[in-house]
Amino acid sequence: MSMRLSELASTFGLALIGEDREFTGLNTLEDASETEVSFLANPRYRHLLGTTRACAVILAREYAAGARCALVSGAPYHDFARIASLFTRRESGFTGISPAAVIHPEARLGAGCTVHPHAHIGARSSIGAGCEIFPGVYVGEDCRIGDDSVLYPNAVVLSGTEMGARCVLRPGAVLGSDGFGFVRAGGEMLTVPQTGVVRLADGVDVGANSCIDRATLGATRIGADSKLDNLVQIGHNVRAGEQCLIISQVGIAGSVRIGDRVTIAGQAGIAGHIRIGDDVTVGPQSGVPSDIPSGVRGGGSPFMDGGAFMRVVSLLPRLPELHRQVRRLEKELADVKRLLQDAAGLCPERTEGAAGGKASRSD
Amino acid sequence: MSMRLSELASTFGLALIGEDREFTGLNTLEDASETEVSFLANPRYRHLLGTTRACAVILAREYAAGARCALVSGAPYHDFARIASLFTRRESGFTGISPAAVIHPEARLGAGCTVHPHAHIGARSSIGAGCEIFPGVYVGEDCRIGDDSVLYPNAVVLSGTEMGARCVLRPGAVLGSDGFGFVRAGGEMLTVPQTGVVRLADGVDVGANSCIDRATLGATRIGADSKLDNLVQIGHNVRAGEQCLIISQVGIAGSVRIGDRVTIAGQAGIAGHIRIGDDVTVGPQSGVPSDIPSGVRGGGSPFMDGGAFMRVVSLLPRLPELHRQVRRLEKELADVKRLLQDAAGLCPERTEGAAGGKASRSD
Amino acid sequence: MSMRLSELASTFGLALIGEDREFTGLNTLEDASETEVSFLANPRYRHLLGTTRACAVILAREYAAGARCALVSGAPYHDFARIASLFTRRESGFTGISPAAVIHPEARLGAGCTVHPHAHIGARSSIGAGCEIFPGVYVGEDCRIGDDSVLYPNAVVLSGTEMGARCVLRPGAVLGSDGFGFVRAGGEMLTVPQTGVVRLADGVDVGANSCIDRATLGATRIGADSKLDNLVQIGHNVRAGEQCLIISQVGIAGSVRIGDRVTIAGQAGIAGHIRIGDDVTVGPQSGVPSDIPSGVRGGGSPFMDGGAFMRVVSLLPRLPELHRQVRRLEKELADVKRLLQDAAGLCPERTEGAAGGKASRSD
Repeated sequence: MSMRLSELASTFGLALIGEDREFTGLNTLEDASETEVSFLANPRYRHLLGTTRACAVILAREYAAGARCALVSGAPYHDFARIASLFTRRESGFTGISPAAVIHPEARLGAGCTVHPHAHIGARSSIGAGCEIFPGVYVGEDCRIGDDSVLYPNAVVLSGTEMGARCVLRPGAVLGSDGFGFVRAGGEMLTVPQTGVVRLADGVDVGANSCIDRATLGATRIGADSKLDNLVQIGHNVRAGEQCLIISQVGIAGSVRIGDRVTIAGQAGIAGHIRIGDDVTVGPQSGVPSDIPSGVRGGGSPFMDGGAFMRVVSLLPRLPELHRQVRRLEKELADVKRLLQDAAGLCPERTEGAAGGKASRSD
Repeated sequence: MSMRLSELASTFGLALIGEDREFTGLNTLEDASETEVSFLANPRYRHLLGTTRACAVILAREYAAGARCALVSGAPYHDFARIASLFTRRESGFTGISPAAVIHPEARLGAGCTVHPHAHIGARSSIGAGCEIFPGVYVGEDCRIGDDSVLYPNAVVLSGTEMGARCVLRPGAVLGSDGFGFVRAGGEMLTVPQTGVVRLADGVDVGANSCIDRATLGATRIGADSKLDNLVQIGHNVRAGEQCLIISQVGIAGSVRIGDRVTIAGQAGIAGHIRIGDDVTVGPQSGVPSDIPSGVRGGGSPFMDGGAFMRVVSLLPRLPELHRQVRRLEKELADVKRLLQDAAGLCPERTEGAAGGKASRSD
Repeated sequence: MSMRLSELASTFGLALIGEDREFTGLNTLEDASETEVSFLANPRYRHLLGTTRACAVILAREYAAGARCALVSGAPYHDFARIASLFTRRESGFTGISPAAVIHPEARLGAGCTVHPHAHIGARSSIGAGCEIFPGVYVGEDCRIGDDSVLYPNAVVLSGTEMGARCVLRPGAVLGSDGFGFVRAGGEMLTVPQTGVVRLADGVDVGANSCIDRATLGATRIGADSKLDNLVQIGHNVRAGEQCLIISQVGIAGSVRIGDRVTIAGQAGIAGHIRIGDDVTVGPQSGVPSDIPSGVRGGGSPFMDGGAFMRVVSLLPRLPELHRQVRRLEKELADVKRLLQDAAGLCPERTEGAAGGKASRSD
């Protein structure tokens, strides 16, 4: 596809500063060709404005002077996102229901569904209108999947799972595997049956090879428009609110309650049974052992609020210096005490009291 | 299904305190309806006894007074587990050998096996009696799988793997992928062939998308009744004992030896070639760089025993305070020394010695 | 297969010290039988030389005396690797193109490709000569895969991905899933379309269930002969150089630039948009918040160079001791000051100045 810069500017309310031309797509400042538009959102890349071959750059007014041709925006990243949606394409051209898919006669498919070869849909499961189910996907029995959801290759949805509309499961994502319910009891390993389900609200996105376990009882729940990155683990009976962002390799233990608009950065871990309020931000690799009230931003293991965490992080590398300081102090204080003992000759009646560490005004 | 509370009480040896009725299932204190039974294992949820709609609650005698109707148990969680097993259901109603499965003519299936469509079983592999192999499962050549094992959708078992009876592979679990055997040698990347296998004893459970690598030589081994959670990595030539609990996202490097009844909590990492004794507990996010003797419980990175770890963890957030204390001490000590120098006028012959930090009794 | 020790020695330039015999394979020192050869690379296992049943051991000259029969090598691990390659076997005996595979008429397969049943290859994708595509593999549209690459069961390669020659995707690996492009903007969740691709150079190996996300724009790139272990996450627009070793469960956030011959140990995390130079080694569980120049080896979270990190790690467990030392110093200094106050009677005119912490030589 191809479009004029002026057309783009008027469609998205940008100010074009520079020569109007045709362009064919989007690319990074480093890789863009003369027929591609790029964008500058992160100031650390502004030095690339001088060298990019892009025919125009979407950016904030303050950087416009640096670009040969500028598309000035009040929110460059957001406008880029809207523009990029013009250039996205479907993963596959295949449509319709493949005869090589295995669909149980008691399963129900909504209008306009695409089911690829070698997908499986179990008894009494219902797939909403406009869904796409890729090859190797397994949907168990008694599942409900809302309209316009997409299940990418080899995603697995075990029995009883409920998903809202516009949900996305990336390749290899697993919903409804048994929660980890094992206890050593009297010399034998006891298995706690996991009889609950997984329930996703509308607009939930689950990353590649991420896992959301079924509840022991009741449901493990993810709220509307919450997004999980790849390789994330969500334990049984977790409840997450709306518009949460859970970054790659985060682990959330069983029965954790998470509020709305919570961001948990990469590789962080949340201990079981705790509560995290709304609008909380947990930094990367954090270890969260206890509740976090709403609005707190922080990091570290154990988790601390932002200010405290930054101080600790900046001091940690200075631990050896601190040890040296303390050793020096001990030596110097010893010298001082020795000096005082010598000096004591001057006022002998006082030194015992002093050596004993208490001054007796009485005498 | 439906059952009377009195019947449940007598079957599992519980004391029913309250009105006898019919119930239809189990659920959490928060979500239970009037026809469901719930349980209280974790005291932190006892406040829910007042609000739950459950028709009865399995709990310890001390909390019985708080419940409208109580099923008093000596071990509420264990009794709940036993009761819940009455309400579990199979993932799928499908039975038999699907003609759409690909089973090599030289493979052997035991009596009563179920093999779903699009499962693959390679040459000379044997599947024990009563196993269930779900869609998308790949079992390579020369594998042995014991009786009553279950391989959930898209689990992968590469050639030569041996599994005991009653093993469970959750969706996407991978057994027998090559260990990470790469070495940069003289400017080129050398690949060390991984010619060993993976061997699971009876009753081993491997979580969703977890990986157990084949040995370089010999076998990577997991002992009887050991349970692995989701997204766990087990390196080549690891040997784990019996009844171990390896929680989600744990990584165990190559050639580690782990004893019996070891618990390794979420996101912990174990360095290569070390030995962990029996009955060890490793806390979440721990980094274990060296051997741990039997019976030790601890955490942290580097790993410390429990007491030491708790002290360090509690002091870490106080590092800034410690720095302030040390700075203050330095200043105060400087004042004292200055004061002494001034005071030195009183006994000049002593001060050089003192300034030099050593007191000479000789003079 | 079977071979004589003398034949092995001459083929690989080893010195045979001991009786010549037939052997049938390789195994570990612990598990080798009388007809198997073993090797000693890691000195910590040399005590096993006395007990191994191996008919010969590949080892360095210094350990030769300890073995009943020695194959002396200048580089035992490398020679073992070369010898082991004689004993590797293919995962499967299947060859050819299965009629149960789904190959789009517009896809192109090179000479000598093997495509197993239930593999999928999309429109306009080209598979190089001698590739093997296992069951359950999904290759989307417009992909290019170089010669002699192997895609193990259930690996997923989404549309537009390019792979060089001799690449390996382990089971469940996912290439080209959308980068995590979500932003909360004005009360709604904004999705940033991910329109780029993934590009692997020749000889790249991607571990089981590892994920490499497609770029927002342009390409996420992994350089020649770089090897990724299992459960690794590579974010959108990352660029890694050649001969990198990325160990299990490492997470690399978006737009990170990594040089050549970089080693990143298990569970480490790299923050977004930073640059890591050539020949860098990042220790296990490290958290890297900022750029690392070439040649640096280190670890920790935050990342420190090796020396500093080792000092901090060794001091961390001694934090409680440090706190005690500081408390003791404070008490002792208080005693000294009290003592001085008492002593002050000796030279009253001086003490105010001193108490005020400044010495006035003027008086």
